[in-house]
Amino acid sequence: MEKYPSFLLENAINEFAKLPGIGRKTALRLVFHSLKRTTKEVENFGRAIIALRNEINYCKVCYNICDNEICDICSNTSRDISLICVVENIKEVMAIENTKQFHGLYHVLGGVISPMEGIGPGDLQIKSLIERVKNGKVREIILALSTTMEGDTTNFYIYRKISNINSVKISTLARGVSIGDEIEYTDEITLGKSILNRIDFSKTIVLQH
Amino acid sequence: MEKYPSFLLENAINEFAKLPGIGRKTALRLVFHSLKRTTKEVENFGRAIIALRNEINYCKVCYNICDNEICDICSNTSRDISLICVVENIKEVMAIENTKQFHGLYHVLGGVISPMEGIGPGDLQIKSLIERVKNGKVREIILALSTTMEGDTTNFYIYRKISNINSVKISTLARGVSIGDEIEYTDEITLGKSILNRIDFSKTIVLQH
Ligand SMILES: [Zn+2]
Ligand SMILES: [Zn+2]
Repeated sequence: MEKYPSFLLENAINEFAKLPGIGRKTALRLVFHSLKRTTKEVENFGRAIIALRNEINYCKVCYNICDNEICDICSNTSRDISLICVVENIKEVMAIENTKQFHGLYHVLGGVISPMEGIGPGDLQIKSLIERVKNGKVREIILALSTTMEGDTTNFYIYRKISNINSVKISTLARGVSIGDEIEYTDEITLGKSILNRIDFSKTIVLQH
Repeated sequence: MEKYPSFLLENAINEFAKLPGIGRKTALRLVFHSLKRTTKEVENFGRAIIALRNEINYCKVCYNICDNEICDICSNTSRDISLICVVENIKEVMAIENTKQFHGLYHVLGGVISPMEGIGPGDLQIKSLIERVKNGKVREIILALSTTMEGDTTNFYIYRKISNINSVKISTLARGVSIGDEIEYTDEITLGKSILNRIDFSKTIVLQH
């Protein structure tokens, strides 16, 4: 174990090393880099991360991250409000927005059902999704969750809850996204195509369950 | 260019991405990780880095980093005050301390002479080193700078400035540290041995200049 000449130094190294993917060697490098920056630069850095955590909002409609009550996507009147793409996290909203192929709205679940990690339907924004579908303006739901076992389970759970409401159509991403792929790491072209060629979800259940 | 749904989010990503070795993908990952942590954890992180930059001190004797006026090494009365190891930065102090082979004091220059980067002798703690040698208690100076051209130039500059003061002995690290190596990345055993087997600096000049 290294011995550090200063508590402030050791504390800063420890804090950097708590971040995922950052070992003690990298933490040390980041700390020495911080010492070379101006106080203003370092304060901007520290305050930006604290402000993010303390002041961030989640859209009251779709639970996307935003600075106000309602996100830019939900408040954009040129978007198709009859089409909702259901995603796990904000990262997927950003990935799909980058494809420029989707002009509906989103619904951010906040994860997928995972009994292993103790995440049940009640921990996710599923009830609020059902409410959005019930209000009647939704024509189609696109399930765009990861093609993992947890994603499949969540797809199926949502399908059972909303397939009988207002004859809403439930589709899922066209295969093209390979089994086991995580949506956020899928390249833009594949992801854009798989949204355009989305398929009826009920046709995929027969094969899986 | 990605479009972000929130200024706070974008700002935090930009701040992480300013750090060396952290691209936008990693920055995004660190930002989403920060959103999952408690506000307390994120505040501890941000404040630790700001406090490091704002409150850190440098030892008035050796310019090592410390929390007080004089560092733990300089104020440790069991260390040999007649022996000073001259290093570039605090990282090298830590690397040499880890070898447990050196029981003298240090002098942290704050870099090496580099005309390319506009760093001259006046930008480094060389004057203060000369003062320490002049005060008469120093018997030997060990030059432990990187074995690069800039390190060699700095060694030679210091040698010319102090070799005629009080017949101080000037040594340098035993070869074992390969040419072009950076001291901070040298393994502990090699580094420890090269301190124990340090050589008379004047014998190395003949070969180099
Ligand atoms: Zn929204
Ligand atoms: Zn000191």
